[in-house]
Amino acid sequence: MKFSFPQSVRLMEVGPRDGLQNERLIVDTMNKIGFIEGLVASGLKRIEVTAFVNPKWIPPLADQVEVAKGIRRQKGVSYAALVPNMKGYEQALATKMDEVAFVLAASDTHNLKNINAKTDEAFARYTEVALRAAEDNVPFRAYISCAFGCPYEGEVAVSRVVHLAQLFTQLGAYEVSIGDTIGIGNPKQTLELVQAICKEIALDKIALHLHDTRGMALANIFAALSLGVKSFDSSAGGLGGCPYAPGASGNVSTEDLVYMLHAMDIKTEVNLDLLCGVSLKMEKLLKRQLPSKVLSTKRVVS
Amino acid sequence: MKFSFPQSVRLMEVGPRDGLQNERLIVDTMNKIGFIEGLVASGLKRIEVTAFVNPKWIPPLADQVEVAKGIRRQKGVSYAALVPNMKGYEQALATKMDEVAFVLAASDTHNLKNINAKTDEAFARYTEVALRAAEDNVPFRAYISCAFGCPYEGEVAVSRVVHLAQLFTQLGAYEVSIGDTIGIGNPKQTLELVQAICKEIALDKIALHLHDTRGMALANIFAALSLGVKSFDSSAGGLGGCPYAPGASGNVSTEDLVYMLHAMDIKTEVNLDLLCGVSLKMEKLLKRQLPSKVLSTKRVVS
Repeated sequence: MKFSFPQSVRLMEVGPRDGLQNERLIVDTMNKIGFIEGLVASGLKRIEVTAFVNPKWIPPLADQVEVAKGIRRQKGVSYAALVPNMKGYEQALATKMDEVAFVLAASDTHNLKNINAKTDEAFARYTEVALRAAEDNVPFRAYISCAFGCPYEGEVAVSRVVHLAQLFTQLGAYEVSIGDTIGIGNPKQTLELVQAICKEIALDKIALHLHDTRGMALANIFAALSLGVKSFDSSAGGLGGCPYAPGASGNVSTEDLVYMLHAMDIKTEVNLDLLCGVSLKMEKLLKRQLPSKVLSTKRVVS
Repeated sequence: MKFSFPQSVRLMEVGPRDGLQNERLIVDTMNKIGFIEGLVASGLKRIEVTAFVNPKWIPPLADQVEVAKGIRRQKGVSYAALVPNMKGYEQALATKMDEVAFVLAASDTHNLKNINAKTDEAFARYTEVALRAAEDNVPFRAYISCAFGCPYEGEVAVSRVVHLAQLFTQLGAYEVSIGDTIGIGNPKQTLELVQAICKEIALDKIALHLHDTRGMALANIFAALSLGVKSFDSSAGGLGGCPYAPGASGNVSTEDLVYMLHAMDIKTEVNLDLLCGVSLKMEKLLKRQLPSKVLSTKRVVS
């Protein structure tokens, strides 16, 4: 059996958004800004800095505007924000975000419970925002969440994921990020899902967004790499997932992912030591050890 | 790219030995016996129950004889012990172990520091024990440790690992377990190492023994599965690795491994829920949360 892997991959750092929105402690605005600037200094080129969602729904991101405005921007870095609707999009535009992201589950029940809309209704809403983003020359990506399984519906048909991936790329998404929201996926499933999606859309438009709830994320990423996928979401330190909820877990850790990629001679632009320094500061603020394994080898133990 | 995977795999549960010898707290004999019996009840068919090593070197396993004698044996289960020399072998024989294991590093420096012998001297010592085991019809396996890298020498030549694997199989080992002792390996390296070894020895004599220090173990196992490897060592809960030493880490968790295998339609004989119950009891005794991710989804949080 002959394997080949991409020479380099693109990362989307989601720690400041998907990570911090799921932590028990709320990080203050100045420390969020310092965190984001530290991530950029470590070499990360795409950072999802916040979500322009009603603060009532996600209190830890209530300072979204202050954070977005407060970051000293660096050239060559794309600062991204999640936007659920036109209002969020307009906030992202007003705060000079470089790109935006939509999230839609591959499960009707999940969409009804989380965004109070059926999948097709939510897609129609995003269509309007996407047309506006196209006019404004703002690139966007789409998260297809619950693509590996849904907490309410259980198994999710591959065809639903493929269909949404097609819809979003037809709409102009530069990338669709296939999400294992509850970390239920396995590498065989990853192979099958990626193979099905890349029959319909270009391989270089596929990203993976994996939560590491059951420890499968890196195995799933390795499976995807062997098929040529070269875009992955991750969060510094493995941030996210309330430590007080059984089984809740953050995204795959950026450190562990970067360690694996570099060890496999796959390039990123990240300096792993600098990144670990940034995450170690964050775990002090959050008063808990973050789950990244590579980070644990850098922790100074007294 | 077309993948195929084994239909079933063999596991070697090393929690009672490799796990408990590296925990900060020492588990008493009765609880060790209960642990081993619980592991068997969960469906594990090969268990490394202890090491017949001078207790001066490994105090947590000082009750090796009591443990080995105390276990109520079940048919169809192979109870294994690590033996460093003829004296250890004789203790294993006297306590009716079903199989024994030798450990030898693929690094001279590591062998000198750990067993006070050069690699060839240590191999000569094992040869004597192996001949005796053959006479006694006691099957044995060999751990080739530091096969992915050495804490003293750094990189370890693939040729050294291949050579030792050949030597041990020629000596009669039913399996060689290729060890990533310091958890430094990556899946690309796993592919290269397994491909090199299985040019020289039969694929079904290869096992992997991976510590999860940097979170790579399951990705490495997935890589090996895609090449047809079907024997893996693991420890319940991911036991092992002193939590007070930075970067020290246990073996890949049996729960996470079994979860991945079952999800990929690869059979083991393990009942995952029963196994989690056993590990949850053990983490109470050890007064720390074990690192298994799947286990964390079973923990009842108050």
